[in-house]
Amino acid sequence: MMQSWLSISPTSPFSIANIPFGIVSTCEDATPRPAVAIGDFALDLSAFAAGGGFSQLPSIQEHLSVFSRTTLNDFAALGRPVHKEARSYLQKVLQEDTPYPSILKSNVSLRESALVRLESVQSHLPLQIGDYTDFYAGLNHAYNVGVLFRGPDNALQPNYKHLPVGYHGRASSVIVSGTPVRRPRGQVLQTHVAGSTGPIFGPTKKLDIELELAAFVCTGNTLGDPISIDKAEEHIFGLVLMNDWSARDIQAWEYVPLGPFNSKNFATTISPWVVLLDALEPFRAENLWPGETGAQESLLPYLQQQRLDSVYDIDLEVEFRTAGLDEPTVITRTSARNLLYSFPQMLAHHSVTGCNMNTGDLLGSGTISGDAPGKLGSFLEQTKNGKEPVKLPNGVERFFLQDGDEIVIRGVAGEKGGHVGFGDCRGVILPAHGK
Amino acid sequence: MMQSWLSISPTSPFSIANIPFGIVSTCEDATPRPAVAIGDFALDLSAFAAGGGFSQLPSIQEHLSVFSRTTLNDFAALGRPVHKEARSYLQKVLQEDTPYPSILKSNVSLRESALVRLESVQSHLPLQIGDYTDFYAGLNHAYNVGVLFRGPDNALQPNYKHLPVGYHGRASSVIVSGTPVRRPRGQVLQTHVAGSTGPIFGPTKKLDIELELAAFVCTGNTLGDPISIDKAEEHIFGLVLMNDWSARDIQAWEYVPLGPFNSKNFATTISPWVVLLDALEPFRAENLWPGETGAQESLLPYLQQQRLDSVYDIDLEVEFRTAGLDEPTVITRTSARNLLYSFPQMLAHHSVTGCNMNTGDLLGSGTISGDAPGKLGSFLEQTKNGKEPVKLPNGVERFFLQDGDEIVIRGVAGEKGGHVGFGDCRGVILPAHGK
Ligand SMILES: [Ca+2]
Ligand SMILES: [Ca+2]
Ligand SMILES: [Mg+2]
Ligand SMILES: [Mg+2]
Ligand code: NI
Repeated sequence: MMQSWLSISPTSPFSIANIPFGIVSTCEDATPRPAVAIGDFALDLSAFAAGGGFSQLPSIQEHLSVFSRTTLNDFAALGRPVHKEARSYLQKVLQEDTPYPSILKSNVSLRESALVRLESVQSHLPLQIGDYTDFYAGLNHAYNVGVLFRGPDNALQPNYKHLPVGYHGRASSVIVSGTPVRRPRGQVLQTHVAGSTGPIFGPTKKLDIELELAAFVCTGNTLGDPISIDKAEEHIFGLVLMNDWSARDIQAWEYVPLGPFNSKNFATTISPWVVLLDALEPFRAENLWPGETGAQESLLPYLQQQRLDSVYDIDLEVEFRTAGLDEPTVITRTSARNLLYSFPQMLAHHSVTGCNMNTGDLLGSGTISGDAPGKLGSFLEQTKNGKEPVKLPNGVERFFLQDGDEIVIRGVAGEKGGHVGFGDCRGVILPAHGK
Repeated sequence: MMQSWLSISPTSPFSIANIPFGIVSTCEDATPRPAVAIGDFALDLSAFAAGGGFSQLPSIQEHLSVFSRTTLNDFAALGRPVHKEARSYLQKVLQEDTPYPSILKSNVSLRESALVRLESVQSHLPLQIGDYTDFYAGLNHAYNVGVLFRGPDNALQPNYKHLPVGYHGRASSVIVSGTPVRRPRGQVLQTHVAGSTGPIFGPTKKLDIELELAAFVCTGNTLGDPISIDKAEEHIFGLVLMNDWSARDIQAWEYVPLGPFNSKNFATTISPWVVLLDALEPFRAENLWPGETGAQESLLPYLQQQRLDSVYDIDLEVEFRTAGLDEPTVITRTSARNLLYSFPQMLAHHSVTGCNMNTGDLLGSGTISGDAPGKLGSFLEQTKNGKEPVKLPNGVERFFLQDGDEIVIRGVAGEKGGHVGFGDCRGVILPAHGK
């Protein structure tokens, strides 16, 4: 296992095996700028580049300006071979027996200007998002929700095992971890009020989470020319964690016939550090589907993958915090393997009509749930749509989220000392306006 | 009626009463830049501003740089009072008895540099679109489609008369009039093939149009803070025509349970000139709903409008062209009054959760149909989903669009000589790839 000359806790999600990219600012310099996370530090790539940090990587010289942008879009647009070189070079700079000690290890002034403690940086959205699409590839989630609303015999819709179902989401309200979430108000059909016929207006009473992974697109395609399944991975910059906050009562009333809209458009939180696919390469795994005999062949050719191990073995957890609890409580533990379709399949399907993808587009996986209680990625599933409470310590119970509740999603692959993790995807619920 | 010193045909959509804003380039200068359309000309606002054209409008001086941008976003972001002043000033410069003859009327060199014939300009998307949302506010269309799929008793869903149903669309594939549209391929359930169980893959056989209006947002709102119905109009820059191309066979298979996705994401065409709401002010009209007793009161307060005349009396037509026809044939004539909800209502609903709107966001109205044959905004309705052909001259028939077919949507308000029109919203169908 690779070691760094920086002291890194073995439980850090940001081991030298990771090197995830993000955008940070500090009190001293409010301009957002690219960085990588390493142990307890952000390595400010703007300061690093300005201080000659990339001088031993000739291929990046003509692109150094990407490290003084306020988003990672220009870096992402350089393509995966460049990301791979940059990550691998930064690992060499940071490793114990670095071939380039003078770059950073023994360069006190550059260490002082470029290494900033994570607790003193402010994270920003890592890329400017053009379009955001959310899929529904979490098989167990789709099944569980289908059972709740249509019963076990019709749980999955007829199209579900033929294509990655997805919908266009709201890009403007994708926010970075730590941004508070205002409880939305909207129309809800109050079915159990005597004599009530129409909808009422008010704060959602069924504010929920959705535990998801999401992929950023690095390079796109021209309108009219699909991305083939075999090339799709080359178009993916990396992954983040995502919490697709959802107002279930608003959703139930509005979604016919064009899908979820106001129930989802008020906030979607992502974790701040983009973990490159190269960093996740050792954790490839088969998704839920290819293991079944003939499953891959039952897909139309444009969705058939050369490699069946195209999802990732990432441990996911959802932590719940609230004033009435003495300490944070994990309410869900599951794995990112619980997907019926991989991101390359989603990308191939999305673009098969010729739909053009752009640098910075974001694709959500859909809610990821395991196949048992304790592994479910939404309160909708955990409480059977508000019928059975989640029981927490101190007698605290929840059907859905209350004001002041805080959710932290975490994800990590690999062994202690070599963790490839995402950092927190966090949000606290603020009370609705006008109460 | 106001006259211009420029010779303008009385049938031009771009009378001096209009002054719509767009983005153009020319062979001589490929850089896209702002312009207004007037008669047969584009007035290049970049050249106009550089040549002192705005010298008699003090309030715009600090903002002149917006006219050298490649999109109208920065101009739009200045807000409606500035748009109103700029339009009114340009009308004064262009009117027969202009108070400022030296600005343009008698300024031969500025006329030569700034007035470009429309046939020699290339139009571009007028604004960079952040998010694109498509509503479903065309009551007759929603009813007609409901009858086709659920019968007359359940034609409208229970929510339809309580909220403007909408969904997030694909912003990246919104294209400007004249851009060809590649027939998309996708999954279709082939129900009438003996022994067939699963979907097949291929070019859509039900390529359709949707006749729509769309509104551009000029100024947005902060995440968490809704736009109230009474302020909503101030957030709308202006309107364009829109053709929401749709693949009905792909849509029928994919849309459960999250709405249309690949069936809509391959292309959406808009007309190039943004007609400001100020120019449409004389054509305000009541929408389909407020005329019914108590209808306005039956809406929840956040959707109740102070003014009931908040849609526009714009005549719309759809023209069809194909090689087998001697001349273009109008297949639909209807009015933009056929909306159940106005754009201010759509904006108030969209943001009531706190969803943040940004400059350049685009809101589609939904398909606009009248209440009788000859007034229908889609082939789906005209052919009863492919059962009865549209009969055209020369024995030409269409159920849906064939390769090489061309659609031109036009819209105009006002009398001859004072037309406030949009110019063409045009697209021709290219054959699918891989045939
Ligand atoms: Ca979701
Ligand atoms: Ca539409
Ligand atoms: Mg969301
Ligand atoms: Mg479209
Ligand atoms: Ni000003």
